[in-house]
Amino acid sequence: MEYTRFMADRVKTMKGSAIREMFKRMADPEIISLAGGNPASELFPGEELSKIAGKVLMTSPTLALQYGTTDGYPKMKECARSRAQKVNSVGENDEILIVTGANQGIDLSAKAILNKGDKIVVESPSFIGSLNAFRTYEAQLVGVKIEDDGMSMEELEKVLKADPGIKVIYTIPTFQNPTGTTMSAEKRKRMLELASKYDVLIIEDNPYGDLRFSGEDVPTLKSLDTEDRVIYVGSFSKILSPGMRLGYVVAPAPIAEKIEMLKQVNDVHTPMLTQLMCVEFMKKYDIDAYIAKNRELYGKKCAKMVESMEKYFPAGKVKWVVPEGGIFLWCECPTITDIAPVVNRCLEKKVAIVPGSNFAIDINAPSNMFRLNYSSATLEKLEEGIKRLGEVLTEML
Amino acid sequence: MEYTRFMADRVKTMKGSAIREMFKRMADPEIISLAGGNPASELFPGEELSKIAGKVLMTSPTLALQYGTTDGYPKMKECARSRAQKVNSVGENDEILIVTGANQGIDLSAKAILNKGDKIVVESPSFIGSLNAFRTYEAQLVGVKIEDDGMSMEELEKVLKADPGIKVIYTIPTFQNPTGTTMSAEKRKRMLELASKYDVLIIEDNPYGDLRFSGEDVPTLKSLDTEDRVIYVGSFSKILSPGMRLGYVVAPAPIAEKIEMLKQVNDVHTPMLTQLMCVEFMKKYDIDAYIAKNRELYGKKCAKMVESMEKYFPAGKVKWVVPEGGIFLWCECPTITDIAPVVNRCLEKKVAIVPGSNFAIDINAPSNMFRLNYSSATLEKLEEGIKRLGEVLTEML
Repeated sequence: MEYTRFMADRVKTMKGSAIREMFKRMADPEIISLAGGNPASELFPGEELSKIAGKVLMTSPTLALQYGTTDGYPKMKECARSRAQKVNSVGENDEILIVTGANQGIDLSAKAILNKGDKIVVESPSFIGSLNAFRTYEAQLVGVKIEDDGMSMEELEKVLKADPGIKVIYTIPTFQNPTGTTMSAEKRKRMLELASKYDVLIIEDNPYGDLRFSGEDVPTLKSLDTEDRVIYVGSFSKILSPGMRLGYVVAPAPIAEKIEMLKQVNDVHTPMLTQLMCVEFMKKYDIDAYIAKNRELYGKKCAKMVESMEKYFPAGKVKWVVPEGGIFLWCECPTITDIAPVVNRCLEKKVAIVPGSNFAIDINAPSNMFRLNYSSATLEKLEEGIKRLGEVLTEML
Repeated sequence: MEYTRFMADRVKTMKGSAIREMFKRMADPEIISLAGGNPASELFPGEELSKIAGKVLMTSPTLALQYGTTDGYPKMKECARSRAQKVNSVGENDEILIVTGANQGIDLSAKAILNKGDKIVVESPSFIGSLNAFRTYEAQLVGVKIEDDGMSMEELEKVLKADPGIKVIYTIPTFQNPTGTTMSAEKRKRMLELASKYDVLIIEDNPYGDLRFSGEDVPTLKSLDTEDRVIYVGSFSKILSPGMRLGYVVAPAPIAEKIEMLKQVNDVHTPMLTQLMCVEFMKKYDIDAYIAKNRELYGKKCAKMVESMEKYFPAGKVKWVVPEGGIFLWCECPTITDIAPVVNRCLEKKVAIVPGSNFAIDINAPSNMFRLNYSSATLEKLEEGIKRLGEVLTEML
């Protein structure tokens, strides 16, 4: 059978994530992955969550196993609220929704806003999962370049001025994926001024905000927002467990209401057991102490990666900015135009990195950049992985 | 702030499910609900799942808490495959995907197929969750009336003939929601013939197929499909737990691949813990024995509901067909045109039912029908609920 006639336009040209394709090749256990976005699993509170899950299912089987409400289990909503309030990111006109991972929050926010052909401003480069979500609504991505202190505000204004039809800006302002950069407080204020001036919304995606290991905290866009323009998407994936798929959306009520309706026809509600487990975990344990342990570990891992890069990378051939938090480090190789052959040679040498083209608006344009992840591998594997990568770079740059 | 300008067309006129609104009014514990679609919670294997969850998190914390793959945990895919194979519903050209509840499978199948303005044939009436999912892709719903033995094949052919642009038929052939009817084997064969003749796909939604308590099994459409036209959506919600949100899609590879990409940007993957729990449950226990207990209970509950209806409903004023399985019973009141006042009076009398308009293509047209659910309430509450309903019907018909 030929299925082309049945495909919606939105999926006709859609390609799977090259990262995912790479993961398939990475079944080889000898490959050291610096490619993924996995949080460190060595600190997962398996024993604590084991006891909690056992108890929740024994004492509240109906609550854990029966249908729940689309907006989320009320106590879970309170947990999400407490996380958002810690960074002053719930306004009085906001509603909170529990979503099955922050990605769902971004996908459904886009679905509530974007018609076919609508333009959405995104950082260039940005997180492929979000970009691909926007592509499924046949939106046009308008990339604005990212600088060491976040999105270029000059370019943003130019873009907004040129096109009054733009409805929304998508940003990961803190420890951005893939660049690891953080938008300065001044730029955040400026972005809100521009959003007001040109009447656009902002989707603030903040999965890494809790993972700062150096420097000073910067206020969230949502906390600076006096006009209810920001849809704030938070996540438990990097502070508790990604496999549990728990995220939340804080949005002005009229928008939250639409996202809730879209969620109802998407997956009805987020699984109950994982919500109940998160509630119990936050009641019984100090989640901030757990996050602090992760932060410390990520600081060490990042330092080890940078130290190894300085040791093994060919001198002067690779540029990077050391991140102050999060899980990613972004590299540029100014002497070449396309990193793809390097990435392929790396796989032969049993180390995986992600080429920059994956995060680009135009995924077919060559890129001389690549993304490294330091949260997932152990300290030893990090050094060994960077050593292998350094050998390839020395050979090919 | 005024948000109308930011809303996508798809959500502008979208209304929340009236059933959900009713649920909010139903916080009153004195109300007996015959309105929902909840499976019986009295049989939930809470103790078994408690032990399983505790053990899985203790022995495999990384697997349970780290990111998983979009298509599903491999052993969970095998579990889904075994359920589908039991009804001969996996072909050699098919792929299996695990989804976060069957609703996600339907939503993303529609997203892969439907462009704005595309027409999709649905049973009239049909499940509001699916109809609303199709509406979010701005598809046009073409209703085909449902008869005691399933969708009218004459009307289906008329519709397909009239519009060569139709791409897909959505059907719940077994114990349909809301009517409880089952499509005959003859009609299933005819539907496949028509699908072939007019070159359309079929989405077969089969959440209730395991819940037969009388009559003879009818083969699934998927099992009769020799041309790989059927996308089969299965669920663990009615045979294990809806709160776990586990469903699966069996689809020809080219379509499954697109659905998988859409799932990746929707919620990345289905939570790992619930997948692992389902795998262990099916390994350690006989899920068919568990389903058999449910079937027996639902047969008893249905019989109790019908017996109570015969006792308390005004004679000759309400028509219904006794279902052979599933969880719903559909009633028509030929002497009135609009059931809405009855539904409201019922809430005053502390019993909840769902008006037929909720399941209609045109939700604003009045309906003289209503849906009853017999799986959720206890036998005592079922009789008391029908007694209260009977009093209202006697008063108002």
